[in-house]
Amino acid sequence: MEKNILLTIEYDGTGFSGWQRQPGRRTVQGVLEDLLTEIVYGGKRVTIDGTSRTDAGVHALGQRATFQADIKMPVENLMKVMNDRLSGRPESRSENEDIRIVGCEEVPDGFHARRSANGKMYRYSIRNAASMPVFFRDQRYLVTKPLDIERMREAAEYIKGTHDFACFQAAGGEPGKTTVRTVTKLDITAKEAEGGGTDIDIEIAGDGFLYNMVRIITGTLVEVGEGKTRPEELQEIIDSGNRENAGHTAPPQGLTLVEVYYR
Amino acid sequence: MEKNILLTIEYDGTGFSGWQRQPGRRTVQGVLEDLLTEIVYGGKRVTIDGTSRTDAGVHALGQRATFQADIKMPVENLMKVMNDRLSGRPESRSENEDIRIVGCEEVPDGFHARRSANGKMYRYSIRNAASMPVFFRDQRYLVTKPLDIERMREAAEYIKGTHDFACFQAAGGEPGKTTVRTVTKLDITAKEAEGGGTDIDIEIAGDGFLYNMVRIITGTLVEVGEGKTRPEELQEIIDSGNRENAGHTAPPQGLTLVEVYYR
Repeated sequence: MEKNILLTIEYDGTGFSGWQRQPGRRTVQGVLEDLLTEIVYGGKRVTIDGTSRTDAGVHALGQRATFQADIKMPVENLMKVMNDRLSGRPESRSENEDIRIVGCEEVPDGFHARRSANGKMYRYSIRNAASMPVFFRDQRYLVTKPLDIERMREAAEYIKGTHDFACFQAAGGEPGKTTVRTVTKLDITAKEAEGGGTDIDIEIAGDGFLYNMVRIITGTLVEVGEGKTRPEELQEIIDSGNRENAGHTAPPQGLTLVEVYYR
Repeated sequence: MEKNILLTIEYDGTGFSGWQRQPGRRTVQGVLEDLLTEIVYGGKRVTIDGTSRTDAGVHALGQRATFQADIKMPVENLMKVMNDRLSGRPESRSENEDIRIVGCEEVPDGFHARRSANGKMYRYSIRNAASMPVFFRDQRYLVTKPLDIERMREAAEYIKGTHDFACFQAAGGEPGKTTVRTVTKLDITAKEAEGGGTDIDIEIAGDGFLYNMVRIITGTLVEVGEGKTRPEELQEIIDSGNRENAGHTAPPQGLTLVEVYYR
């Protein structure tokens, strides 16, 4: 009897060519499918469906994935078995300890990690300082010009709500599909950084995101914070539907998929 | 005219086979000597003397190193030139961005990063929790059994001061040399950890440290915190001068060289 299993997955994206399985490259999906194929009975190749195809360097605290398999062990044990294989024991190190399973549950037939989701929350992490301490280089985007947080917050007000976000979509999005999305939350917080400067975190939630949308929104907000763009220009940028009017694409290492929402 | 230059160096030790230059391996000293040899005029091979030969996986916030070279540029500019080469520009990434120069000054002839030092401070970082979030795996030692901080602090009292610390010296120390050292500070702090559990930091300063001394002290204190060793047993362990009576060697990734002291 096959069960339908939903995993919650944390990973440091630094060492991966992104989520999606690709021949000859180390990807999160690839490592997990190889592992599950070894663990699960029956010699059948296991394939998993993830919620978000995160790019190389992008992290996750709460990526989700579903798969169907004939698991003989109680589902509660599967998480421990997977983590023991991924991380090794406390005393030893393992090459796959940059992935950790933080949730594992049986879900009804037909539940699908991506298609059943009705929203996601991402966090984009900026270090606003003269230079980047080595320990944060893979977790934050260094912006050396001082950022005006209040201006960034003003600009964010234009992005919240339901709009056609074609201006924030990178080439490589699926053509012909709607580019209307609803941004339900866009919070910008600042705090003093360990090592000097300011850590600025952008939390953005919505019903769905276009390709590179969070990174392009971040790049646009950074340009507002630097004074290159006025907050009220966001209205024109969105109305234009033109990627060239928006800001640069912020680099991948600042982005984390925090949570996936289900009904 | 050769100048004598003192560097202060921050590095993430994860990607290095330690500080000391070794043929065919990536080491902090090796990367810096290659870089300085390129930057400095005259085609002479530059060699640098570091304060502490940190092991593979051990980090530094304030490693020090001296070198002598005929630097034409003002010393103030050297740090920027080095960092531009190490880290690349904000927009790009570099393979050497795990090293950063955080200080650079001219010092009098005869000043030597190691021989002129009269003390060092290290920090050892523990995560006391059921499991390790992926983002801290290279920065903290995971201890899953609950640790009693008060017992660890009691044990630490026996270590402070001037003692023969032969019991805390790993094989590989220099034979025939004195194993008497003075520990001037041993503070244990605990705070709630990001991601669950408790972060326990051990800060230890002294006039000098034997090979693996901080990691063996940490392993011994962890065993006290777990209840395997009584705090007052530390007196016997130190008096015995026998490595076998002390605790395990805590793994390298929790250790950071924080500061070097000069008169």
